[in-house]
Amino acid sequence: MTSIAVVFHSGYGHTLRQAEAVAQGAGGILLPIDQDGLLTDEQWAVLNHAPAIVMGSPTYMGSVSWQFKKFADATSRLWMAQAWKDKLFAGFTNSATMNGDKLSTLHYLYTLAMQHSGLWVGTGLMPSNSKAAQRNDINYVGAFSGAMMQTPSDASPDEVVQGDLETARLLGQRVAEWTRRLNHV
Amino acid sequence: MTSIAVVFHSGYGHTLRQAEAVAQGAGGILLPIDQDGLLTDEQWAVLNHAPAIVMGSPTYMGSVSWQFKKFADATSRLWMAQAWKDKLFAGFTNSATMNGDKLSTLHYLYTLAMQHSGLWVGTGLMPSNSKAAQRNDINYVGAFSGAMMQTPSDASPDEVVQGDLETARLLGQRVAEWTRRLNHV
Amino acid sequence: MTSIAVVFHSGYGHTLRQAEAVAQGAGGILLPIDQDGLLTDEQWAVLNHAPAIVMGSPTYMGSVSWQFKKFADATSRLWMAQAWKDKLFAGFTNSATMNGDKLSTLHYLYTLAMQHSGLWVGTGLMPSNSKAAQRNDINYVGAFSGAMMQTPSDASPDEVVQGDLETARLLGQRVAEWTRRLNHV
Amino acid sequence: MTSIAVVFHSGYGHTLRQAEAVAQGAGGILLPIDQDGLLTDEQWAVLNHAPAIVMGSPTYMGSVSWQFKKFADATSRLWMAQAWKDKLFAGFTNSATMNGDKLSTLHYLYTLAMQHSGLWVGTGLMPSNSKAAQRNDINYVGAFSGAMMQTPSDASPDEVVQGDLETARLLGQRVAEWTRRLNHV
Repeated sequence: MTSIAVVFHSGYGHTLRQAEAVAQGAGGILLPIDQDGLLTDEQWAVLNHAPAIVMGSPTYMGSVSWQFKKFADATSRLWMAQAWKDKLFAGFTNSATMNGDKLSTLHYLYTLAMQHSGLWVGTGLMPSNSKAAQRNDINYVGAFSGAMMQTPSDASPDEVVQGDLETARLLGQRVAEWTRRLNHV
Repeated sequence: MTSIAVVFHSGYGHTLRQAEAVAQGAGGILLPIDQDGLLTDEQWAVLNHAPAIVMGSPTYMGSVSWQFKKFADATSRLWMAQAWKDKLFAGFTNSATMNGDKLSTLHYLYTLAMQHSGLWVGTGLMPSNSKAAQRNDINYVGAFSGAMMQTPSDASPDEVVQGDLETARLLGQRVAEWTRRLNHV
Repeated sequence: MTSIAVVFHSGYGHTLRQAEAVAQGAGGILLPIDQDGLLTDEQWAVLNHAPAIVMGSPTYMGSVSWQFKKFADATSRLWMAQAWKDKLFAGFTNSATMNGDKLSTLHYLYTLAMQHSGLWVGTGLMPSNSKAAQRNDINYVGAFSGAMMQTPSDASPDEVVQGDLETARLLGQRVAEWTRRLNHV
Repeated sequence: MTSIAVVFHSGYGHTLRQAEAVAQGAGGILLPIDQDGLLTDEQWAVLNHAPAIVMGSPTYMGSVSWQFKKFADATSRLWMAQAWKDKLFAGFTNSATMNGDKLSTLHYLYTLAMQHSGLWVGTGLMPSNSKAAQRNDINYVGAFSGAMMQTPSDASPDEVVQGDLETARLLGQRVAEWTRRLNHV
């Protein structure tokens, strides 16, 4: 079995940190989409062989970045051939606002995965939402369909919230567990 | 011109407080959907005459409560007649989790408004999302398409966040301003 | 391994036919939600033991029927306990209009499944969308995230489109195949 | 009052035809986003002065094309300044499949409009969905939140369905009527 792929775009480095956490949890390979929305042939080959693909993007203006969307559009030939059918998919996103339409981004990633006839797995995490909840808790941002990270608009990539990174790491771990189960390893 | 209607369901009183804030901002009439999902004939009459309808529901299991949905389904005859065409619509929701699929609820309220051939107006508020942001800020929860309130799972209706109530009040105020503008008052 | 559950609401019998086709494909058990939005204790027991749950509802006023939503809301205690974690989920819907916000219904079913920490599987079917396409083709209505059926507003349950039923049957079959694979049978 | 803007991307000419129909109905100005996702300074100036903006894109891989998304991302500075606040917005999309996630595209256009604090107006059209319905009917594809066009995957721009163009034209007309009403003209 080849490696889990973590394909993502990061504009300023925050989503990169989230992707690294996912990859750490999944034992996966990072495939950063460049600032022109492109991947190398080698990166495409990793995707094509991966049993599971975790997709990530910042939420810009209410959905994935255009660079991520360019990647998505570039999968149309693979879609026509249903070359990614039956892979496992999951998703993550970062933005500055607590809600800020991050769910719209996760919905898009799911929609893309469904077109590719994949299975989708979410965080499997309950939210931290009592009065005792702390910002640094796992899944405090509170998503089910994928991992969300919230980083203030003026915070550097060094300042992302550890609990959000841990949430991302756990998503990666869940993807790895399901990948093993689906492949009877 | 008759009054703006604020039609909503509240399970435990939190969404009621949000509805009251909306109604205060809008100068509107509260139309609570009861625990069986019903309105009285008088309440339906207010809705039918209202130039604007603001709809609210807690987010339960990823969308509006069943009581709100029963109300929505009961509008199908009005929909057939397009009796609410060209009214102004807006929406709000409360849940325990920061995200917690509240956007799914707002998307549903918007979808319902579009079936009724309404206009939709959102918060018109920028989010508070810098490092200096405080939980009590206006639109800290951070939504554009409608007003979101987040109340911890173990908090009473007395403990809702004032900033979230103010966000709701401002949505009501925005609906009132647009209602005047649309009706040349 | 116990049986795949097909839990659904049908208002007038059209969605029932779609549910029967799903159940036929899946080798599953039909669990009709009644007109008050209720299931029996026996039906809940089947759900609790099922390795996979396929959920269906007509699209009424832009989402699932209130009866289906009442069922969804009634799962909140199971959600708190994450009692359905790691089950496989899928969904289907019928409505009178070609689009008619059916995707909104499927999005809701997916959202509910994610809250229950399930895996989601779609149709795995390419759409029939060339000039030679016929209304009776498999996946002519054209959905990926779940099975869609379109039945004219004045058609009886006897008049549903065979190709739409076959689409539903194939979704059931796909759920059965993945259920076997996930459980190493 | 300056002109209604119809800003859109068309990959192969089908969405262009839809945009032309919208512009005809609205008495609006066509602003085609180029194949690199760019507009000229003059086109941006038209957008900034327009009282209403109708946005259109083909549905590619489940949402707007990357070129449209690049345009959307380029509005982030205008968003920061809320420079488009209180404009009227509407949307349209074309794809090969009857459903094919076109609603996902319209949801995105709406989400973008809400971030810009706009008002959103839909088709205001009932669907043609009885047994007597014909493919060429107005709103046969059947959308409320925006205009949908469905063109088979192997059809040229000359072969788009007239009823879908008329649906688009009526959306444009509705936008023009509301623009007049909102501006008391």
